[in-house]
Amino acid sequence: MKIGIPASRGYAIGQAYIKKHVELHITSDTPKDLLAEKELLHKAAEQSKKQLEKVRKKALESMGEEKAMVFDAHLMLFDDPEFIGAIASEIEGGKNALKATQDIMDSYVAIFESMDDEYMRERAADIKDVAKRLMNNLAGIDDSFNIEDTNTIVIAHDLTPSDTAQLDRSKVIAFLTNIGGRTSHSAIMARTLEIPAVVGLGDITETVSNGDILIVDGIEGKVIVDPDHETVTKYVLLQEAYNKEKEELKKLVDTEARTKSGKRIDVAGNIGKPEDVHKVIENGADGIGLFRTEFLYMDREEMPTEDEQFESYKYVLDKMEGKPVVIRTLDIGGDKQLPYLVMPNEMNPFLGYRAIRLCLDRTDLFKIQLRALLRASVYGNLKVMFPMVSSLDEFLKSKELVEECTQELLAEGHKVSESIEWGIMVEIPSAAVMADELAKYVDFFSIGTNDLIQYTLAADRMSEKVSYLYNPMHPAVLRLIKMTIDGAHSQGKWCGMCGEMAGDETAIATLVAYGLDEFSMSASSILRAKQIILEQE
Amino acid sequence: MKIGIPASRGYAIGQAYIKKHVELHITSDTPKDLLAEKELLHKAAEQSKKQLEKVRKKALESMGEEKAMVFDAHLMLFDDPEFIGAIASEIEGGKNALKATQDIMDSYVAIFESMDDEYMRERAADIKDVAKRLMNNLAGIDDSFNIEDTNTIVIAHDLTPSDTAQLDRSKVIAFLTNIGGRTSHSAIMARTLEIPAVVGLGDITETVSNGDILIVDGIEGKVIVDPDHETVTKYVLLQEAYNKEKEELKKLVDTEARTKSGKRIDVAGNIGKPEDVHKVIENGADGIGLFRTEFLYMDREEMPTEDEQFESYKYVLDKMEGKPVVIRTLDIGGDKQLPYLVMPNEMNPFLGYRAIRLCLDRTDLFKIQLRALLRASVYGNLKVMFPMVSSLDEFLKSKELVEECTQELLAEGHKVSESIEWGIMVEIPSAAVMADELAKYVDFFSIGTNDLIQYTLAADRMSEKVSYLYNPMHPAVLRLIKMTIDGAHSQGKWCGMCGEMAGDETAIATLVAYGLDEFSMSASSILRAKQIILEQE
Repeated sequence: MKIGIPASRGYAIGQAYIKKHVELHITSDTPKDLLAEKELLHKAAEQSKKQLEKVRKKALESMGEEKAMVFDAHLMLFDDPEFIGAIASEIEGGKNALKATQDIMDSYVAIFESMDDEYMRERAADIKDVAKRLMNNLAGIDDSFNIEDTNTIVIAHDLTPSDTAQLDRSKVIAFLTNIGGRTSHSAIMARTLEIPAVVGLGDITETVSNGDILIVDGIEGKVIVDPDHETVTKYVLLQEAYNKEKEELKKLVDTEARTKSGKRIDVAGNIGKPEDVHKVIENGADGIGLFRTEFLYMDREEMPTEDEQFESYKYVLDKMEGKPVVIRTLDIGGDKQLPYLVMPNEMNPFLGYRAIRLCLDRTDLFKIQLRALLRASVYGNLKVMFPMVSSLDEFLKSKELVEECTQELLAEGHKVSESIEWGIMVEIPSAAVMADELAKYVDFFSIGTNDLIQYTLAADRMSEKVSYLYNPMHPAVLRLIKMTIDGAHSQGKWCGMCGEMAGDETAIATLVAYGLDEFSMSASSILRAKQIILEQE
Repeated sequence: MKIGIPASRGYAIGQAYIKKHVELHITSDTPKDLLAEKELLHKAAEQSKKQLEKVRKKALESMGEEKAMVFDAHLMLFDDPEFIGAIASEIEGGKNALKATQDIMDSYVAIFESMDDEYMRERAADIKDVAKRLMNNLAGIDDSFNIEDTNTIVIAHDLTPSDTAQLDRSKVIAFLTNIGGRTSHSAIMARTLEIPAVVGLGDITETVSNGDILIVDGIEGKVIVDPDHETVTKYVLLQEAYNKEKEELKKLVDTEARTKSGKRIDVAGNIGKPEDVHKVIENGADGIGLFRTEFLYMDREEMPTEDEQFESYKYVLDKMEGKPVVIRTLDIGGDKQLPYLVMPNEMNPFLGYRAIRLCLDRTDLFKIQLRALLRASVYGNLKVMFPMVSSLDEFLKSKELVEECTQELLAEGHKVSESIEWGIMVEIPSAAVMADELAKYVDFFSIGTNDLIQYTLAADRMSEKVSYLYNPMHPAVLRLIKMTIDGAHSQGKWCGMCGEMAGDETAIATLVAYGLDEFSMSASSILRAKQIILEQE
């Protein structure tokens, strides 16, 4: 039996299909003829584009327009002067094409992965995917795979977006990877596809052979190779029970989450793009607890206009029909270079110029977003929160800008709702420690556990060497969460949570006991969270 | 009047001497002939070495052996394959010599500056200094300066170690710089030389002319240009009062620091190298509150041996004659590449693999240090503390290793003191939040404010864009400090502080009121701290 990180719930019994991992050999040699090297790059790019067209066609047939759109984005990268152009210019600087591609890939990926945002991390996976395809073509490696049997369990070093988009759900029933964690691209994809997955298995590609019979336990993170008859029987029963439970969960869509003693708790959804609202509604959410707005600022040459932003916010408020929608203002930073936004190079971007710090420095940009939010406010139940607030001062300055924008809009003849709530993310230790004081000024808190845990323990969970320290149940983290909730309640304010911990089944009972008023999580976790809350005293 | 950051106390009235700042124009052009470019590098290196020999001679004559030794280290860099060799290999990769030097400099400086350690930051300044000299020689720029008049106030964009080592104290009475903060190299040098300095003045090199009469107020951080008679009179009086006070302070060398109500408080010194112990003793310290051990690991090709380490610890324990000596175990990390220590590349080194995390991973290395400490323990009053402890587990694991080493040493016939105290640095928010629990296991705490403030506010003070958030008096920081002291006292343990805040005159009264038992600071702050403590109720 192998133990890994459970990444997507469910059980599967099937046959192993191993996608071999070919390690590229990349040197730092300077090519003799730089022009010829650039020619190689462009040929490999053309070849990659042709492959992608085929993948896109296949994805469209088997999985529909939405999945296929991923590959439009991939295809666009090959025409992006900031990508292919950057690689070419590294070659001009004396690098060989493989090394140049790897370096540009690494710098892009580092930028996107540094952001605590699923949407951004998806972008990192996209770029890795495209760059890997390009490198394989440069090295003459064929990395494609083709699954013909049903009941297949795919085993890979890692799965790229191209890989997952090609997985035929009528054939693939689970997957396993050597690397990755709960928030890696392949884990997120598995949950979207609703098939069990175990990641971070180390050397599963080496220890299992093609055709081996496997049991995948996506709940405990176990993989059993060549199980005996008794074990198979046991898991068939577990699988049946699991499927039955899933059916039961679906009945909770219209049920209010209430503890046995009658406390009503809001279970809301996190979204990254306006379209995501539908999945949240389908899963019976009480509202949107976190609408990230970074998507508006990405993949473009200039700032999003006030009208564009307004339309996105209005869309979500409309669809939620009066249920609360918490929109977080721009939480961008790190080394990200947008064409219209110059960012400093920082040694520790997590401790740097980002989120509210950037917005209060670039009020020109911040005011456009605030105006769009204020204009959209009349279309629903809007709550706005500011990310990375470390001190009261930042909240008060933000509110001053809100007041300024409100006056401007009213003078221009726009309407602005008078019942917007204004809150902050509590994700920096200082905000948790000072929660009782901050609660006098804000309308609500939403605890961002992902960052709060990182700062409280001084451990970057993306750093392989210290990610073992990242522990949501660390007593210091729990004390700070309790302090935040108590602080809110001492001033009659409500406190929610929108970090991953809110959707973590093992944490919900504790958080209910602490008095948390609202849980916001990915759509797929909502029903299970409701069920757990219903079981609490 | 110009306002900057007060970097070194005192007043001066004198004439401006401006060291012009020549901005280098560095392109990314690839040179046509890479071999010729490498030849240019080696010629500039030879020229730099000759200049440095002269500077060294001058420094030796005017300031003695210790100051001159800085330049031995500079000279050695020119023979270091990791420095000149790295630049040459960047040239081979297609860069011009200026760009190659700049890039290597930047990567080195980033590494050293990322460490919260004065010794390391000095090294960053040294490398910048050497690289700048090399770049000036590559560009044919003469950057030397020569001061002939007494009562000179030197004004520069920034001052390098070469610059400060050449400052003739019989002529230079103060200095002013455009950039820098309280912990920048020039600020530290000014305090060592005991001359007033104001840094971070923005454009002082542009707004003042050679020969202008200036008043420098190193206490308030003010610079007055062309003062009127009345102002000069005022400052002459202030200067006299200040000098009198300095004389008064010297009388406190043998006085115990005791509040009016009789609480005895230890005022100790921070040291980075064994020799620093003398200055601490001269200033009447009650002990060493922080002996950083990183110096042992730097500038060498292989691990320091147990015997080498033992000798250093024994030296300091000997000299302190039974007074407490708190030695901190290796606090290294970031991207630092030592020849004998492979470190991962991390996006946020401050939240990464460093200090106790590294030591518990590399127990081979840690045990050598622990053995050296245990062997030295019989020569004085040793206390050992572990840096970057986030959880009890790390302390317990460290203590297990201590026990293992003790048994080994006893079996080998060595003696080990039975009265060593074992403590932790409280510099991660989780440790402060859990102080009441941790205090059950440790013998003492020492609060490392520099890191504690950075993590609590999620603000890297080295990042120009967010350093304004770094505030030792932030209420969240003060609450965590109070929590730590209360936690220690609840279990009958003592609590010290060895971050810069301990020597900050404006913070001492608050910290005394909170019940802090020990203050540890740079030697030059000790007497003033004693004086302030004597004034407290």
